[in-house]
Amino acid sequence: MSIQKLVENIKAKGNPTVAGLDARLEYIPECLVEDIRKEHGATLEAAAMAMLRFNKGLIDALYDIVPAIKPQAAYYELLGPAGASILKETISYAQEKGMYVIADIKRNDIGATASAYAEAYLGKSNVWGEELPVYNCESATVNAYLGTDGIEPFLKECRAREKSIFVLVKTSNPSSGEFQNRDMEGKPLFVRVAEKMNEWGEGLDTPCGYNQVGAVVGATYPEEQKIVRSLIPKAYFLVPGYGAQGATAKDIANAFNDDGLGAIVNSSRGIMCAWKKTNNNGTDYQEAARAEAIRMRDDIVSAI
Amino acid sequence: MSIQKLVENIKAKGNPTVAGLDARLEYIPECLVEDIRKEHGATLEAAAMAMLRFNKGLIDALYDIVPAIKPQAAYYELLGPAGASILKETISYAQEKGMYVIADIKRNDIGATASAYAEAYLGKSNVWGEELPVYNCESATVNAYLGTDGIEPFLKECRAREKSIFVLVKTSNPSSGEFQNRDMEGKPLFVRVAEKMNEWGEGLDTPCGYNQVGAVVGATYPEEQKIVRSLIPKAYFLVPGYGAQGATAKDIANAFNDDGLGAIVNSSRGIMCAWKKTNNNGTDYQEAARAEAIRMRDDIVSAI
Repeated sequence: MSIQKLVENIKAKGNPTVAGLDARLEYIPECLVEDIRKEHGATLEAAAMAMLRFNKGLIDALYDIVPAIKPQAAYYELLGPAGASILKETISYAQEKGMYVIADIKRNDIGATASAYAEAYLGKSNVWGEELPVYNCESATVNAYLGTDGIEPFLKECRAREKSIFVLVKTSNPSSGEFQNRDMEGKPLFVRVAEKMNEWGEGLDTPCGYNQVGAVVGATYPEEQKIVRSLIPKAYFLVPGYGAQGATAKDIANAFNDDGLGAIVNSSRGIMCAWKKTNNNGTDYQEAARAEAIRMRDDIVSAI
Repeated sequence: MSIQKLVENIKAKGNPTVAGLDARLEYIPECLVEDIRKEHGATLEAAAMAMLRFNKGLIDALYDIVPAIKPQAAYYELLGPAGASILKETISYAQEKGMYVIADIKRNDIGATASAYAEAYLGKSNVWGEELPVYNCESATVNAYLGTDGIEPFLKECRAREKSIFVLVKTSNPSSGEFQNRDMEGKPLFVRVAEKMNEWGEGLDTPCGYNQVGAVVGATYPEEQKIVRSLIPKAYFLVPGYGAQGATAKDIANAFNDDGLGAIVNSSRGIMCAWKKTNNNGTDYQEAARAEAIRMRDDIVSAI
């Protein structure tokens, strides 16, 4: 009941937001970096160590008030193999604290290969007959350009292990309309993807009323949110674009259903870099992140 | 001049094919696994060690006759952080032997995040002012669903470091038509993506006549290949689907231009599992892979 667990976390904390953990070095306060750099120099391994320390500090500061984290794979990959190690450690650490983990990987491939991604992030790796967990997240983002056979392996993990996915429907970036908003046989492409999700979600309902097949719908496009919301009422929305990308709480109101549920709003930079606004050189990064998470929660709750 | 280097490699070896290195444990002969499993047990790290040994053996057997390798990221990710380490080692090893490396990652994200992917696979990672290479491939596959801002960071690396990309246009899987072949304002979506590539390739020409912005076009769809070939004559094609996915040499003839260039055909399972057909328990996996690579080369060269 993976999406069920997310909904329970959201209700328990009264907070429909997710903390994006983008492993960007420029987000880490110098006070967390200094000794590591002095000892290890400017290496990918040292950078990963500093990032892990920051991630754990952020999780410690947030886990009792924020229901989920969303690590963005790209920034971990930019730290090489050491980045893969700290991605895994960050995920486990958040899970130990009861947080729901959405791997923002936007993966896509043909069937057999999509299975490898699905097993890596949601399932298990079969090593000579032993089933071993790898990144073992609750959920992952996926790109549907390849159609059903690229999605089915993820659905298999949703069915077998009660995991969930978020399919890219309408992304938050300025050029997302280049393909997503163009007309495909009478409706925009993003609507065609949303329509397909109704098929993909079949048999994946949970008692909370939502199914395991969610949608990524950018906060920066409130009109599109409204359209997608009505098409797939049982899909949870993962909503990027609040704050740093310019969308306000008002802009995301359409992502929610009348039950006050149905969406989880991401903030990465806003929370991670909150310390940059307090003039304490980051020594208060935990307090600053927590204060920003509370401000964001209240801002969003007041708008829905 | 990255695509230039690929073309030079293809010409020098008279071979328009790429060896796909899918890190699948079931592809490794038992004779390469036994001692590692005995010493380390069934762990992700042991699996990665065995896979690296197999990859190096394959590269040793192929580098003088095959111009390029295409590691498929999904299978390395399924081996966790140890998989990331051997991906990096496999790439360096192939490059030392003069092979062109295409990272099959199909990445996609909004601008800032796409930059992290582009830097990780084609560029460098900035760690506290030091520019460090990470996976450092010659080329990578990308998914264009997010439009120009998701592609631009990769083009930046193409311009700055003479790298290349292959954009997913028409994929080889059975359900690729669900979105890719539907009509978008008068033309199929895959044609709309190909049209956009003409913009993305601007300023990225190389002396060989091809530009740095290539296309993934599946061997399983010869008609679509013909259409895309005529639309983007200066784009190199990366052609998956030959062999194991059912396409023959005849099926890929449309991917080539009249100069006999313009496409590179992938084979993963055919080459990696050639040993399974010789009844020697894989002790001859290098000879078998080499023989299959030669057979494939001759099969394809005879058809173009």
